Amino acid sequence: MIVGGVAGGMSTAARLRRRDEDMEIIVLEASGHVSFANCGLPYHVSGVIPERSSLLLQTPESLAARFNLDVRINTRATAIDREKQTVTTDTGDTIAYDHLVLSPGATPIIPPIPGIERALHLRTIEDVDAIIAALTDDVRSVAVIGGGFIGLEVAENMRHRGLDVTVIERAPQILTPLDEEMAAIVEKRLTDNGVTVITDGDTTSIGADTLELSDGRVIPADLVIASIGVRPANELAVAAGLAIGERGGIKVDDRQRTSDPRIFAVGDAAEKADHVSGEDTLVPLAQTANRHGRLVADIITGRDVQRTPTLGTAIVGVFGLAAGSVGWNERRARGAGRNIRVIHLHPANHAGYYPGAETIHLKVVVDADTDLILGAQAVGGDGVDKRIDVLATAMRAGLTATDLADLELAYAPQFGSAKDPINMVGFINDNMVQGERTFQWHELDEALADGWTLVDVRTPGEYQRGQIPGAVNISVDDLRDNADTFRDKKVLVHCQVGLRGHVACSLLGNLGIEAANLDGGYVTWTHGQLSRN
Amino acid sequence: MIVGGVAGGMSTAARLRRRDEDMEIIVLEASGHVSFANCGLPYHVSGVIPERSSLLLQTPESLAARFNLDVRINTRATAIDREKQTVTTDTGDTIAYDHLVLSPGATPIIPPIPGIERALHLRTIEDVDAIIAALTDDVRSVAVIGGGFIGLEVAENMRHRGLDVTVIERAPQILTPLDEEMAAIVEKRLTDNGVTVITDGDTTSIGADTLELSDGRVIPADLVIASIGVRPANELAVAAGLAIGERGGIKVDDRQRTSDPRIFAVGDAAEKADHVSGEDTLVPLAQTANRHGRLVADIITGRDVQRTPTLGTAIVGVFGLAAGSVGWNERRARGAGRNIRVIHLHPANHAGYYPGAETIHLKVVVDADTDLILGAQAVGGDGVDKRIDVLATAMRAGLTATDLADLELAYAPQFGSAKDPINMVGFINDNMVQGERTFQWHELDEALADGWTLVDVRTPGEYQRGQIPGAVNISVDDLRDNADTFRDKKVLVHCQVGLRGHVACSLLGNLGIEAANLDGGYVTWTHGQLSRN
Repeated sequence: MIVGGVAGGMSTAARLRRRDEDMEIIVLEASGHVSFANCGLPYHVSGVIPERSSLLLQTPESLAARFNLDVRINTRATAIDREKQTVTTDTGDTIAYDHLVLSPGATPIIPPIPGIERALHLRTIEDVDAIIAALTDDVRSVAVIGGGFIGLEVAENMRHRGLDVTVIERAPQILTPLDEEMAAIVEKRLTDNGVTVITDGDTTSIGADTLELSDGRVIPADLVIASIGVRPANELAVAAGLAIGERGGIKVDDRQRTSDPRIFAVGDAAEKADHVSGEDTLVPLAQTANRHGRLVADIITGRDVQRTPTLGTAIVGVFGLAAGSVGWNERRARGAGRNIRVIHLHPANHAGYYPGAETIHLKVVVDADTDLILGAQAVGGDGVDKRIDVLATAMRAGLTATDLADLELAYAPQFGSAKDPINMVGFINDNMVQGERTFQWHELDEALADGWTLVDVRTPGEYQRGQIPGAVNISVDDLRDNADTFRDKKVLVHCQVGLRGHVACSLLGNLGIEAANLDGGYVTWTHGQLSRN
Repeated sequence: MIVGGVAGGMSTAARLRRRDEDMEIIVLEASGHVSFANCGLPYHVSGVIPERSSLLLQTPESLAARFNLDVRINTRATAIDREKQTVTTDTGDTIAYDHLVLSPGATPIIPPIPGIERALHLRTIEDVDAIIAALTDDVRSVAVIGGGFIGLEVAENMRHRGLDVTVIERAPQILTPLDEEMAAIVEKRLTDNGVTVITDGDTTSIGADTLELSDGRVIPADLVIASIGVRPANELAVAAGLAIGERGGIKVDDRQRTSDPRIFAVGDAAEKADHVSGEDTLVPLAQTANRHGRLVADIITGRDVQRTPTLGTAIVGVFGLAAGSVGWNERRARGAGRNIRVIHLHPANHAGYYPGAETIHLKVVVDADTDLILGAQAVGGDGVDKRIDVLATAMRAGLTATDLADLELAYAPQFGSAKDPINMVGFINDNMVQGERTFQWHELDEALADGWTLVDVRTPGEYQRGQIPGAVNISVDDLRDNADTFRDKKVLVHCQVGLRGHVACSLLGNLGIEAANLDGGYVTWTHGQLSRN
């Protein structure tokens, strides 16, 4: 018996059949569709994915033909009788099980705001149909509540339809898996493309064609889409008395077993183990659901296999910009009291002399005690996904940040650099291990108050075009001849991205002058300012 | 003292200065340029990289200003006196050293063919200048001797200039780091774009505007470019009595020290250690040169650090197709007598329902005894570099092929699939570990001779459009009802790419029928046929 026929449930079902021809396999799906492409839904709203049918990967009929599955759509499991080992459905059936797999997914969070019943969601094919039906010719404005991954995808696709779009995020920044200065790059891309982004935005009521915030602002909103997040669809499990975690996910062990050994849970409804801390967490991602579905099928058919902890690797594309993350961000690592190294860099995605090079803004958080990679974030054009994937692989494998220096990645001028951004992270980290001191953009004020002299080692031309308040300008190539100026001072250097800063810092250090580098240089500092304004 | 001022030598010099302000650093470079973008040279020939100046990353002057380096271009080291610790130059100087770093690079191989003196090469800025000067208006045809990475880049760029291009490769296939059926995909892309590709081509003489092969064919060749490969520029080391390896590279230990502890060697002239076997090898790649240059600077300035073995990760772009490889191919692994699993797959680079999905042809070679990944090859559009890089990272980290199933890679419909091609490799490998038997395309004839029945489980429509001789067609969805037909037979199934074949194979196996799957399906079989024709 499998409850839920999308990613996790359907992976379980198909794998079960491949491992056992005789088993009776019943799949209940509450919605009208199984195995649909939920990650593609926002792109059908705008017509980027023109055909609705291309989102429907399987039907009950196709699954019966290929895998001899008994798939029942529009059928909701209403109760589990664990003693009798039966599930009852809203269609009036009571079905016995030997093994039960719960993969009911997650439910959109609906905040208690007056008028919220007008808000639409985006989770199922039916939701997409409802949104498209609501997009009549007189709809001019859309308010998207929630600036997470799906909220931004909705915003972009609504903009593609030519609508006025406002994104309202309750937190001080959008995309909370990223740190604020990284999210600021994405926010700028949104506003550059005509999306209004409101952070610290607290929606207090929804009217007929507006939405009101707690600060009195009234936002035009012919249509309201709520993408506030999801919570595990745990009702069935709760009612059956299964153990539930603090965050509401169904508790499972390393073999996806719930507190009842006959019942497994996978997907968005089930808790995961966090790669970094080992603690329980919720990660509503399709890939993990698929993987755990396969795992459960293997276990039911007699293999002893275990899940691996989850990294929470995720990515979103917004107006040609990609933003990805894996593991912990700086905020979380500092919150957990970790001793960390933080590295920002802004390399080109491929050799700068080959046409079309784009900047990748990359950030890596390293455990200073173990040198293990705690997490990474990347924002930019082509190649963001590649760097996140390489870092996710390195994290999973337990490589240290220093090991990144020796990764041998594919290089030709169209694809990378002879020193890939990933290698550069390793080099920078190695320099820090060897004693190079850096400050973060948000530590600058404190450093200045602490008596550090800020020196901008870029060219006079770069300095003229914009500088950090309080910085004096001495180009790195002039620093050797002027180093004596800084005798007995503490010198905090910065350049555009950090590289010349490193050269300057090394030079001063070798001359016996206390020096530090502003991590990520002027660019990261600028992103930090964006995020605070 | 550093001999050679491009990748390895210049990385050493800059890093030395960052670690030591007082050291006297002299760099000798035989050509007229240092730190130039050698990997970009082919693209300047066609104007894809329009500005010659963008290939010149540094000058002696810029290096003096920033790093206080004494860089002497057009200066060749002619002899080393190891006892006196001096180097003499063709400009008449004798220079003393405490440490000597040899990074002289490699020299184009020039075969002893009559008329070869007319052939041009592509290794330095001067070479590019010579090629561009030779490309006068009356040049209509170009013959490129050598179908390796650089030969193909030259061929593409010559084609962009509108010339008739013939590539002549002595081996039975182009791009020998790939296996033949993978290289066949690239060869087809070349011929589809008007390049004539001749394999098993043995050039016997070069005339005024032609080139003659041993089989009598005469190839139009107003211009001849020889890209046959390179050999380590070991003359100086040989004359100084340093130990030289079997392949002609300067022998070094794990700290890049030659047989003389005062002399280091890095880059194309130095031997590397192979990641898979640990044996000495030659890998002329910029990244390794840079990395080892940095390493040597660290060692000279007092750190005890060691090189890591090399994977030989490489990639080339040809007419919009990317072809990458890492580690060993099937040919090499079989040649070394390894017990291997070979996996071909043909996934889309991102979710198939999102516009613009392209096929990636991916091949992974796994050590069946240890489950370690021996190597991988990928050919396709966007995303080839990403998969090669993830596999290179996994290899370096010592992940097993089964571990690939649990890598958590960034997924959104534009960037990947909820089951990424990399995860699929892990799943397929896991199935094989669990006993699923596969045959390679080149094992098919033997299997048929051995009594296997070949069953094409694709749809009748697919079968009609092209089939493997001898295959009977029963769609996977009809197989369950027809399985009894195969009672007591050995059934070798195949589909288009291998996935439905796996489903069919599982079904038959679960019914007690001996079954195997044709790895990579009809597509890989087709590539194999291409390579043999």
